[in-house]
Amino acid sequence: MARDHGGDLDGVRATHGGDDWIDLSTGINRVPYPVPLLPAEAWTALPTASARDALLKAAAQAYRTQAPMVALAGAQAAIQMLPLVLGGRRVRVLSPTYNEHAACFIAAGCSVEEVSTPEALAGAEIAVVVNPNNPDGRIIPPADLMALKRQVGTLIVDESFADPLPNLSVAPLAGKPGLVVLRSFGKFYGLAGVRLGFAIGDAPTIGGLTAMAGPWPVAGPALEIGATALKDTAWAQATTQRLAQEVERIDALALAHGWVLAGGTHLFRLYETPDAQAAQDHLASHHIWSRIFPWSPRLIRLGLPGMEAEWRRLAAALG
Amino acid sequence: MARDHGGDLDGVRATHGGDDWIDLSTGINRVPYPVPLLPAEAWTALPTASARDALLKAAAQAYRTQAPMVALAGAQAAIQMLPLVLGGRRVRVLSPTYNEHAACFIAAGCSVEEVSTPEALAGAEIAVVVNPNNPDGRIIPPADLMALKRQVGTLIVDESFADPLPNLSVAPLAGKPGLVVLRSFGKFYGLAGVRLGFAIGDAPTIGGLTAMAGPWPVAGPALEIGATALKDTAWAQATTQRLAQEVERIDALALAHGWVLAGGTHLFRLYETPDAQAAQDHLASHHIWSRIFPWSPRLIRLGLPGMEAEWRRLAAALG
Repeated sequence: MARDHGGDLDGVRATHGGDDWIDLSTGINRVPYPVPLLPAEAWTALPTASARDALLKAAAQAYRTQAPMVALAGAQAAIQMLPLVLGGRRVRVLSPTYNEHAACFIAAGCSVEEVSTPEALAGAEIAVVVNPNNPDGRIIPPADLMALKRQVGTLIVDESFADPLPNLSVAPLAGKPGLVVLRSFGKFYGLAGVRLGFAIGDAPTIGGLTAMAGPWPVAGPALEIGATALKDTAWAQATTQRLAQEVERIDALALAHGWVLAGGTHLFRLYETPDAQAAQDHLASHHIWSRIFPWSPRLIRLGLPGMEAEWRRLAAALG
Repeated sequence: MARDHGGDLDGVRATHGGDDWIDLSTGINRVPYPVPLLPAEAWTALPTASARDALLKAAAQAYRTQAPMVALAGAQAAIQMLPLVLGGRRVRVLSPTYNEHAACFIAAGCSVEEVSTPEALAGAEIAVVVNPNNPDGRIIPPADLMALKRQVGTLIVDESFADPLPNLSVAPLAGKPGLVVLRSFGKFYGLAGVRLGFAIGDAPTIGGLTAMAGPWPVAGPALEIGATALKDTAWAQATTQRLAQEVERIDALALAHGWVLAGGTHLFRLYETPDAQAAQDHLASHHIWSRIFPWSPRLIRLGLPGMEAEWRRLAAALG
C-alpha cells in the first residue's frame, strides 16, 4: 500500500516546517498549461460522450495514432487496471523504474521479475518498459521496442515523459495485439491534479480497460482541459524548447555543485552525489524538496524549477 | 458495455436538434453547489494526502460515520470495483434499480439474480439495495436493512439519493464486515462532472478498494470542492427544504397533466403515464429530456427543473 512517491509535500512541511517549499520531487512541469475557462456543464453535468470523443480526437492527433484509445484518470489508472485486464501472469519490468508497475502486478497476484537490460525482457508474458525511463532517462528506440514486442506476449510502453520527444513514441505503431502504450497528461502539461492519462493499444485490451473504468472515468473539467491543451501544438513546441534550455541550466548548477549527471529527461534530471541523503537534506534546508531512492545511496532526482525566483533559490542552494 | 444512462444529452441534440434543452433525464440537482475558488495547486500538483484526509473528515461528518471510508471518482467507481474486491460470486439485486450494479457484477463473472422484494435477498452472498431506490423511491428503514444484513454475506446499500434523508442512512452503522455503504457527491450537490463518491465499510473491504483505486483516484479540484461543500450544512439544509417544496410543484404539474405519481425522491419523480414513449416524445418536442425504461411501457422519470425559466417551460409542456 504505502509505496513511496514524490509530490506529497505535506509530510515534508510537517517534518521540516515552512510554507515556502519548492517541490522538485516530481517530474511535473512547474510552468503549467493555463487552465482555460470551463463551461458550467463541465462541473454540473455527467461527462458527455461528445466531450470524451473530442478529447480522444485531440489525443489521437497529439500522439499521432489511430489506434484504439481510452482516456482514464491518469496514466496511474491504466497501471492499476492493466494487471486485471491482460491475460499474462508472468511479468518482467525493466528496472529501476517507476515503482507502481511492479507493485500493481504483484497486487494482482502476478509474478514480477525486475530485470536490468532490455534483452532480459525477451520471453516474458508481459514486459514493461518506461520510455524515456524514470528516473535515469534511458531511451530505447522505437525499432528496438518493436523488435522486443515480437519476443514477448504483451509489451507495455509507459511514455509518461515522452511528450518532448514525439519521434520516440510507439503510439503511431499501436493497434495490434501485443503492444499497449500509456500516456500521461499531467506531467508535461503541469496539471497533475486534473488526473488524465491514456492507454493506446489493440481493441480487446482497450475495450477491457474501458469496461473496467466505467462510463465516466474522467471528470468533466479534465475532458475540457485535455482537449484544449492537446490541440495547442504551439504551446507544446514552445514548452519543449524552454525545457531543453532549462535542462542545460539545471545541469550546469548541479555540476558546479560537484554532482555528476546520471541521466534524465526534459522534465527531470538524475545526479550522482557523494551521499543522496545528505544532498536531499541540504536542499531541504533551503526548502527545496527532491527525490531520492531506497535502492541507491548516491542518486538524487530533481524536477525543473518553474518561475525565475525558484531558479534563483535553487542556484543559491547549490551555490 | 452500452448500458443506457440518463444525462448524455448530445445524442438527444443530434436526433432532435436544438441547443436549448433542459435535461431532466437524471437525478442531478440542477441548482448546483457554487464551485469555490480553487487554489492553483488543486490543478497543478498531485493530490496530497492532507487534501484527501480533509475531504474524508468532512465526509465523515456529513455522513455521520466513523467507519473506514475511501473517496473515489464517483459512486460509479465503487460500483465498478466492488465485484473485484468482494469475495462473493452469487449476487442478488433488489430490482428494478440503477442498472450498473447488476451489469458490473455480471462483467466480473458473478451470477446475478434480480429480485423484487427485500425478503428475496435473504441467503445471498452479496445483496444490493439502492435506498432510496432509483427510480421508484422505495425506502427500506435502517432497522430492516440491519436485519437483512444478518441474512446475507455482504449487503451493499447504495445511498446515492439519501442526502435529503439523513436518518435513512446506515452509514452511521457501518464499519463491521458485511455492510458497504455507497454515497454519491455529484447528485445532491449538482456537480456530477466533478466525479466524486465514497465507499464506507469494514477495514478490509475499504482497504481493498483503496488499493485497487491507486494513490490519486480523485482529482485535486474534486478534493477541494467536496471538502468545502460537505462542510456546508446550511446549504444542505436549505437545499433539502427547497427540493421538498419543488417536489410538490412538479407533482402538481404532472398530476394535472393526467399522470399518476408512482414514486420518487427529493431529486427525481416517477410517473405512470398512458404511454412512456409518447410522454417522452411530447416533452422532447418542448426540448425537455426525460428518462424512460426498457422494462416499463408506462413509467417516466423526471428530475427537477432548476431555474424558474425551466419550471415555466416544463409547466408549458405539461399544460
